[in-house]
Amino acid sequence: MPNPQLNSNGELRHLLALHGLPKEILTYILDTASSFVSVSDREVKKVPLMRGKSVFNLFFENSTRTRTTFEIAAKRLSADVINLNIASSSTSKGESLLDTVDNLTAMHADMFVVRHAQSGAPFLIARHLNEHGLDHIHVVNAGDGRHAHPTQGLLDMYTIRHYKKDFTQLKVAIVGDVLHSRVARSDIHAMKTLGVPEIRVIGPTTLLAPAMKDMGIRMFNDMNEGLKGVDVIIMLRVQNERINGALLPSAQEFFKSYGLTPERLALAKPDAIVMHPGPMNRGVEIDSAVADGNQAVILSQVTYGIAVRMAVMSILAGN
Amino acid sequence: MPNPQLNSNGELRHLLALHGLPKEILTYILDTASSFVSVSDREVKKVPLMRGKSVFNLFFENSTRTRTTFEIAAKRLSADVINLNIASSSTSKGESLLDTVDNLTAMHADMFVVRHAQSGAPFLIARHLNEHGLDHIHVVNAGDGRHAHPTQGLLDMYTIRHYKKDFTQLKVAIVGDVLHSRVARSDIHAMKTLGVPEIRVIGPTTLLAPAMKDMGIRMFNDMNEGLKGVDVIIMLRVQNERINGALLPSAQEFFKSYGLTPERLALAKPDAIVMHPGPMNRGVEIDSAVADGNQAVILSQVTYGIAVRMAVMSILAGN
Amino acid sequence: MPNPQLNSNGELRHLLALHGLPKEILTYILDTASSFVSVSDREVKKVPLMRGKSVFNLFFENSTRTRTTFEIAAKRLSADVINLNIASSSTSKGESLLDTVDNLTAMHADMFVVRHAQSGAPFLIARHLNEHGLDHIHVVNAGDGRHAHPTQGLLDMYTIRHYKKDFTQLKVAIVGDVLHSRVARSDIHAMKTLGVPEIRVIGPTTLLAPAMKDMGIRMFNDMNEGLKGVDVIIMLRVQNERINGALLPSAQEFFKSYGLTPERLALAKPDAIVMHPGPMNRGVEIDSAVADGNQAVILSQVTYGIAVRMAVMSILAGN
Repeated sequence: MPNPQLNSNGELRHLLALHGLPKEILTYILDTASSFVSVSDREVKKVPLMRGKSVFNLFFENSTRTRTTFEIAAKRLSADVINLNIASSSTSKGESLLDTVDNLTAMHADMFVVRHAQSGAPFLIARHLNEHGLDHIHVVNAGDGRHAHPTQGLLDMYTIRHYKKDFTQLKVAIVGDVLHSRVARSDIHAMKTLGVPEIRVIGPTTLLAPAMKDMGIRMFNDMNEGLKGVDVIIMLRVQNERINGALLPSAQEFFKSYGLTPERLALAKPDAIVMHPGPMNRGVEIDSAVADGNQAVILSQVTYGIAVRMAVMSILAGN
Repeated sequence: MPNPQLNSNGELRHLLALHGLPKEILTYILDTASSFVSVSDREVKKVPLMRGKSVFNLFFENSTRTRTTFEIAAKRLSADVINLNIASSSTSKGESLLDTVDNLTAMHADMFVVRHAQSGAPFLIARHLNEHGLDHIHVVNAGDGRHAHPTQGLLDMYTIRHYKKDFTQLKVAIVGDVLHSRVARSDIHAMKTLGVPEIRVIGPTTLLAPAMKDMGIRMFNDMNEGLKGVDVIIMLRVQNERINGALLPSAQEFFKSYGLTPERLALAKPDAIVMHPGPMNRGVEIDSAVADGNQAVILSQVTYGIAVRMAVMSILAGN
Repeated sequence: MPNPQLNSNGELRHLLALHGLPKEILTYILDTASSFVSVSDREVKKVPLMRGKSVFNLFFENSTRTRTTFEIAAKRLSADVINLNIASSSTSKGESLLDTVDNLTAMHADMFVVRHAQSGAPFLIARHLNEHGLDHIHVVNAGDGRHAHPTQGLLDMYTIRHYKKDFTQLKVAIVGDVLHSRVARSDIHAMKTLGVPEIRVIGPTTLLAPAMKDMGIRMFNDMNEGLKGVDVIIMLRVQNERINGALLPSAQEFFKSYGLTPERLALAKPDAIVMHPGPMNRGVEIDSAVADGNQAVILSQVTYGIAVRMAVMSILAGN
């Protein structure tokens, strides 16, 4: 089965997952993003690349934060943005996902930015568009279930490249609830493709995916062990709803074992950077002294996130 | 009492209902819509006809779908659109409908797109504006109670004209809960004005309006009878909240008597078109084989809906 | 401690409260607003002063009405506006106020319009931005707790100046729940600065702030006494949730003692104007005959409110 993300020329047609995307495309997106970083610094933060295009934010799962980043990115590209909070909309009237998509397609949508609690929903939409020959409509996955969050993965890669230049010399640790994290999954696939030689995951065994061992990923239950000598630390957000559940102890217990404190950070390389996809739970997975310290690049991630989303949207709209 | 929709020159001042609008105006809107169909096909889907105008979507009843069509139409005309979901707003603070309107008028609104659960609400607003000499502010009814849904009626007429060319030779059947349907009401008035010679309504007696007999409409309880030889079938949406109530049996029962299946469709003319205002309840009022079949023009209705709304808004703003 | 609203040149950097702003700045805002009144009257209601700027409406407290006025003002200045209803967003995920602000800052926000149930929240944000040297990002307080509502205060001053020309000859009465009113507080500070010689507050003792006596404000429990000979009457909105509580009797009781009727209005000067920040409770604090009468300037307040907000935003963006 061909990769639904690429057209027959191997160009990006949808952005659904970083898994399966060739290194050239990842690098092309990062390079394009560089040129957009400066746009947001200008007096007039707008380029006309998507003027008159209709971008639909289809959020079947509420996320003001992610929706906002896409909305800003699209507006800075001069697109018309229509926000659809679908939880409260037609699907509650019993209309199917694909009927909703068909309807918006008939309104001459150019792009769907899709967030969905179910893994695979953006794939379903992309495949449907492909099957109907709607080559001019593009899908961007803004997070689907536990599966993928490719723009987060890309902005993480942009951030790592910005601070560390060369992927092929790095030790990177991902800490926390790796098992349920679409961010971790997207990061790991991208790092594999971009040639990061050592990827570690750190967390309690119940929150690590055994299959990762087969991918050559090193697994650590002891955070102090896992952080030793790494260049990059990617902290994951602890989902509040999982705390005090079967898999996670209390917030204080979690912090004691896996919270990133200045003492633990000192085990990594002295110039190691600390990343977090946000929103942070201070005092749960990360100590405020680290979050606000000078090794944290968490706000740079946000800034680069806008540029990366502008890059993805303009590349898709241009193809 | 003069028709509040027309100014003293007989030009369209508000779009409140299709009842009472002369054929010339209906035809003028449909002709204008033709020119907008191509705008949505362009690379840059925008015309500057309403640049700097403020369009307020006043939705006292939630409808993401209809709100979206108006939002897109207004943005493609380059208007500034402000969405007000009034259920959660000032009226809940006890402010009256007309106080809300007065306030938005004082902010120099140019157009109100009004959706309201109560029949007549958009008329109330239009009359209020007329009485205060606010001739430059226009009201579009986006659906009021069981009364009217004029832009849906117009897009249905556009669709019929597109596929059938001549209204004066047609047999059209409307199927389902005609009694409670503002769509049916708007369609019937428009078809009467445009010269459709034979209009049929099909449904259980409890869901048909006896008054329709006086309008020369043929009423059928037997769907097979009613569909015989028709050119156009307009299926109505079954309101889920009515199923299993006093007037409607279960969804399966309804489908058995009034669901549009391929077998029943075969009773109509071979080139009959199937319409539905959406969102569809597949397996309740319509079989998926019909909904996705090649006689269905349901997605064309959506496309023409944008053009028709652009036409209505630009005509109102231009008068 | 320096005034966080002003930069080192004494220019407006944030608009947080009218208290502490020099007369020159208040007058400069009102003068600038004059030039914007005409913009909203034009065929194309837009000026390019904030093109490409990103304005974030941060509403931690729901207020469709106030949010709308800022949204319109920003759009008429050609800014990109992003609405964040934060009640349903990241703060519910446990992210702190300042983390949210840091994130939006990293997205290259230019302006935050902040509404918050807690007094001081916009100050906290402004101080945080100042401390981090983010001089190019501006905060506008759109109402914080019981503390301040400076754009409402400014539009009230604009309205008074428009109708009465000279502040220094006026008697102004504020009627109702002065104790809990941020509008009253902002109005009083502005009037003190602009030289209004006689300010009166009228209400039951439980709803008047004793500290006002020290500011030279005359306090009245008897409305008939308090209205005698005034030039301007500012009615406050009775908060429904306070009625039938410990401080307020029933709506009818309140109206009997403090509702503005035509009879009571007749006690003021014959050319007195009646103001209300909206939304009005007709029959509670104001009689419909007064609200719709020719001494009411309530809708003018709304109109001037757009111009004043355009003035504030463009002045901040320009400094």
